[in-house]
Amino acid sequence: MELIDGNKIAAEIAAELKIEVSAIAGRKPCIALLRVGDDVASISYVRKKEKTAAEIGLESRIILPPVTISQAELFALIDQLNNDPGVDGILVQSPLPKHIDEVAVFRRVSPAKDVDGFNTLNLGKVAQEDETGFVACTPAGIMELLARSGVDLKGKHVVVLGRSLIVGKPVALLALQKKAGANGTVTICHSATANLPAMTRQADVLIAAIGRAEFVTADMVKPGAVVIDVGINRVVDASKKSGYRLTGDVHFVSVAPLCAKITPVPGGVGPMTVAMLMKNTLKAYRLQACG
Amino acid sequence: MELIDGNKIAAEIAAELKIEVSAIAGRKPCIALLRVGDDVASISYVRKKEKTAAEIGLESRIILPPVTISQAELFALIDQLNNDPGVDGILVQSPLPKHIDEVAVFRRVSPAKDVDGFNTLNLGKVAQEDETGFVACTPAGIMELLARSGVDLKGKHVVVLGRSLIVGKPVALLALQKKAGANGTVTICHSATANLPAMTRQADVLIAAIGRAEFVTADMVKPGAVVIDVGINRVVDASKKSGYRLTGDVHFVSVAPLCAKITPVPGGVGPMTVAMLMKNTLKAYRLQACG
Repeated sequence: MELIDGNKIAAEIAAELKIEVSAIAGRKPCIALLRVGDDVASISYVRKKEKTAAEIGLESRIILPPVTISQAELFALIDQLNNDPGVDGILVQSPLPKHIDEVAVFRRVSPAKDVDGFNTLNLGKVAQEDETGFVACTPAGIMELLARSGVDLKGKHVVVLGRSLIVGKPVALLALQKKAGANGTVTICHSATANLPAMTRQADVLIAAIGRAEFVTADMVKPGAVVIDVGINRVVDASKKSGYRLTGDVHFVSVAPLCAKITPVPGGVGPMTVAMLMKNTLKAYRLQACG
Repeated sequence: MELIDGNKIAAEIAAELKIEVSAIAGRKPCIALLRVGDDVASISYVRKKEKTAAEIGLESRIILPPVTISQAELFALIDQLNNDPGVDGILVQSPLPKHIDEVAVFRRVSPAKDVDGFNTLNLGKVAQEDETGFVACTPAGIMELLARSGVDLKGKHVVVLGRSLIVGKPVALLALQKKAGANGTVTICHSATANLPAMTRQADVLIAAIGRAEFVTADMVKPGAVVIDVGINRVVDASKKSGYRLTGDVHFVSVAPLCAKITPVPGGVGPMTVAMLMKNTLKAYRLQACG
């Protein structure tokens, strides 16, 4: 069994991006990081993005509207960033306060600056295999992890567990694409799937993105499979100082020994998400600079 | 074995649409049918669409630019139709002459008038389960055929053979949606799939859209399956006056006896496509009228 080290691969990508960015004369690519309110997890996520941007040499602009901001005011703020030629990418940190329609806010971001890849047009481009769009960071990160771990999906059966808009569907569409590294046969399972273990046991590559702690057990995995664990779940653990521990959607201790390769949680898919956000920002910069 | 009669179901839909349209006071919904040049098959397809529109009570506007039209001129024509408040839907008949970029032309059609559902934004909306968009006519027709034949996909394994943009991918996304009638577990197979018969034999519902005459044989189908044949292939047949016959992607004579339900070719999915185009035109009218 080989552990796929997301931290290491993300660091490689960051190092590559740093070289690319350092070669840019003049204005550097800039990402606007917009965080509404003071959610503890959001503060830490935005800080991590800011820090990674700085390491790579990207500019970042932190925008911190109060939790009381109205939807109209937030739209106006996004419109400003959309029209600002000094801003290449815009990230609106989720979750937003309950009085704001999150989907509407994500859609307000111009497709050309949608480095999070949540815009309808960019999802359509993933389906159409149109490389001018932005792929959402988590599915893009999964594909990059696979590629850099020497996993070619061609002729493989890829089973995706979960049909969410930000992971399950886009990663299924990516795995299916007619391009080198992809070309997988793809099955998407979810809460309504009958006889789930029989489906997941067919997977040469299993991507678990169902958001249920340790849901995938050894009886659901074919020996020799590659397992990508996208889940990040908090479970109560009295032995920890914080009172909880992080776990994936895969019951790691029983599944890992069966696998050819597996991602740990934390340290697998998670770090890739930030790396892909930075990669998208550089892409947005180049697309904007080149018309 | 029950034959799914596409002609009958399409006629039912047309009759329903006719009632809806007759209730509209004032301007009736209008579809612009744009055909470039004199391709024989295109002439017949556009005529069929015109005739169905007339039966339902929709207006149609036939636009026949010469085969020598430039891409820029065609764009200008589409822009005119995009801006014409008297036109609700725009259909550009495929294929276009070789000197014209077909994908670019389809994208030129305003998403709000894209009754063919080929626009990137509308495909993104299918993925996002956003009902304000237009679903491409063939996949929409397949879902309607299934629904009106009493086939509920929930808990079923739906295997889609083919990953095209206009059939395979959108029908997979539709079958996967979290709504009544859908909720299927979906597998997409294609030319690079290893051990294809083992995959297709798992299908409770098999949707063949691979464009290869009589490709699906009895050994590839599970007894009791529902089979939807999307293929329309011409094969040489000296016994026919025309010198050819039409056949689907399924080897009908050997597969049909195995099936719970199956669509014939012709007379299965084909007629549904025109019916769904008309349904989309009425939808475009209502969306335009209601802002």
